Amino acid sequence: MELEKVPKHEIENRIEKMQGFLKKEDIQGALISQCVDLFYFTGTFQRGFLYIPKEGSPFFMVQKSYERALNESPLSNIVEIKNSRHLPKMISDRGFTLNQIGMEFDVIPTNLYLRYKFIFKESDLVDISELIKKVRVIKSTYEIKQFERAAKIVDRVISKAKDFLKPGITEIELDGKLIGIGRALGHQGILRMRGFNQEMINIYVLSGKNGAYPSFGDTPLGGSGPSPAMGHGSSLKQIEKGEPIIIDYGVAYNGYIIDQTRLFAIGKLNDDLIKAYEVTREIKRDMEEKTRPGDKCYDIYKRAIDIAKKRGYEENFMGFGNNRVRFVGHGLGLEINEPPFIAKGISMEIEPGMVFAFEPKIVFPNIGAVGVEDDYLVTDYGVKPLTITPDDIFYI
Amino acid sequence: MELEKVPKHEIENRIEKMQGFLKKEDIQGALISQCVDLFYFTGTFQRGFLYIPKEGSPFFMVQKSYERALNESPLSNIVEIKNSRHLPKMISDRGFTLNQIGMEFDVIPTNLYLRYKFIFKESDLVDISELIKKVRVIKSTYEIKQFERAAKIVDRVISKAKDFLKPGITEIELDGKLIGIGRALGHQGILRMRGFNQEMINIYVLSGKNGAYPSFGDTPLGGSGPSPAMGHGSSLKQIEKGEPIIIDYGVAYNGYIIDQTRLFAIGKLNDDLIKAYEVTREIKRDMEEKTRPGDKCYDIYKRAIDIAKKRGYEENFMGFGNNRVRFVGHGLGLEINEPPFIAKGISMEIEPGMVFAFEPKIVFPNIGAVGVEDDYLVTDYGVKPLTITPDDIFYI
Repeated sequence: MELEKVPKHEIENRIEKMQGFLKKEDIQGALISQCVDLFYFTGTFQRGFLYIPKEGSPFFMVQKSYERALNESPLSNIVEIKNSRHLPKMISDRGFTLNQIGMEFDVIPTNLYLRYKFIFKESDLVDISELIKKVRVIKSTYEIKQFERAAKIVDRVISKAKDFLKPGITEIELDGKLIGIGRALGHQGILRMRGFNQEMINIYVLSGKNGAYPSFGDTPLGGSGPSPAMGHGSSLKQIEKGEPIIIDYGVAYNGYIIDQTRLFAIGKLNDDLIKAYEVTREIKRDMEEKTRPGDKCYDIYKRAIDIAKKRGYEENFMGFGNNRVRFVGHGLGLEINEPPFIAKGISMEIEPGMVFAFEPKIVFPNIGAVGVEDDYLVTDYGVKPLTITPDDIFYI
Repeated sequence: MELEKVPKHEIENRIEKMQGFLKKEDIQGALISQCVDLFYFTGTFQRGFLYIPKEGSPFFMVQKSYERALNESPLSNIVEIKNSRHLPKMISDRGFTLNQIGMEFDVIPTNLYLRYKFIFKESDLVDISELIKKVRVIKSTYEIKQFERAAKIVDRVISKAKDFLKPGITEIELDGKLIGIGRALGHQGILRMRGFNQEMINIYVLSGKNGAYPSFGDTPLGGSGPSPAMGHGSSLKQIEKGEPIIIDYGVAYNGYIIDQTRLFAIGKLNDDLIKAYEVTREIKRDMEEKTRPGDKCYDIYKRAIDIAKKRGYEENFMGFGNNRVRFVGHGLGLEINEPPFIAKGISMEIEPGMVFAFEPKIVFPNIGAVGVEDDYLVTDYGVKPLTITPDDIFYI
């Protein structure tokens, strides 16, 4: 179990960038405790607290597992902490002021927040979750490489799907087989999604009308899931000839998520569905050709909507009726819902080093859904696909 | 996709029990928004807000998906809500007081809490998460049936494991195959775990020394996972002859989780490991024979620890060194970390209708782990197993 570690210079660069933002916003220090953020800044996924001062050396106080943190993290200041009530003393003992402590308000639950208010009696607790997102949104060469490794696994899984896709197999059974293949190739087994009530699954296999079944999720396609308790994703429905079959598959490798959607059909697909699918490809090509650094997210979104409208799919684009979502893409990284959000009202500018999924999808109530999803790295000149699977319809 | 719904009387009983606790604690009303709690009290897994007043009819304000909520929930008052700022008016328009609003402080993130404080300017926000847990901890006949259905799937998966378990297969590959089998049988695909930094996976396949590899998780066995980014579970290690192989497999059916661990070996296992495994079975039998309603959780925990100590495994029981956990069992339901916690310092009394997993495990550093896990329903007279798989070592 010699695991591949995150390089030291990666961690150093990330912390330096975070300190830059802390200085800019004049925040004394960040006390990071969400495991994904901890992994990003320490190279190890443990429970604990990383204190990053505005200036000076960060130090990592670990609850569990201390041995593992020592083994995996390139940081030099790693200590054990038994109880979070020791935090103020541990921070001030190192010479740092307690008058202001930055925390991840987007994920820390209320009862923990109230406990920290009690523990840090003298301190002003402030939200630093947006600063962390700003650091994480620009990906390094190392991170791009991890996406590329994940993309290779997705490509292999999609190429195997035809071996199992036959009339009568249930969505959920195909789902399980494809997870198994991805797992054997090193898929970490879960896709992380940040925030309250966010729940991500590795794969959606949605055939025929299940592609148009809504869910609680902030996704264009929901799916019924096997029961109201699950509430999204693949169902117990058998897959039939002539239906649109959507396979939306995600793989995380060394933490980084690639998210891809392809359209399958057993036998023929009717012309209306093929026409709609071609429109989603047209929207994707338009984005690929026109997007440049400096573009605002809402402009990219608007270009997509305009094509959907011009082609007559305004009501069906990215969901139907009340269940439409107001985005056509989302950032990727250690979590599947990172910025940039290619969405209505989002003025964030696209910058080199950003990575995002673009997923134009068209939904026909009671019939199903068609669509495509690929992932892109923003370069100095435009965007470059990270996903490598051809995007023609896969006919079985 | 005609899904099996939660019966109306189930939902009515749950709400009535919650209202009983609200009356007892003199809390005006509960505004529930976590999706799992919403499913429990409405029968549908949507985003929205369920207001349960101390007295009177509850009403469900749905963000997404409204259609689906109407279709799946037996509640009669279901309305749409576009923005959470409308909550105070929607509640007071129905004649309820706003001076006190109960919320799930254990899961609502800080920035949402601060938003609710702003929206509910006149209200005192109070924590009702413990009351919800008290309602959920006693399971109904309907819920027990769902556990039994999940247990049948686990049993089928374990009986299939021997078909794939051969020298040289990686942990992660076997993991994926067994997920695939469970999924085809209706496994909902994820195991939900409540709270901050809690991350559950469907299966741990841990062979040899990976069984002793620590992780961030509050679990006796961690596993390295495939990378520091994943940080727990099955690894890329190949499974070999003569190693202890732990398969800890969970299935959720209609929401309810069964959690089972079995020990496998290819060829022989050395006598020390067999002896330790027999001690974990002894601890489990002792719990089965002696536990009665009215027992305190810490007493059950102590009986387990005492046997481990008497047999010479004090240092190895439930993890090793710093990575030991202070429990030997946990409640089950829609989430895998529900009360009762059979743990040090927990004075909760065992009551009929509670369901819990009991998982004595012994860890040998650099060698591996042995142990067993079964799930139990507390009856009027003792405990009754819900898991049905034999607990002998599975030799291949």
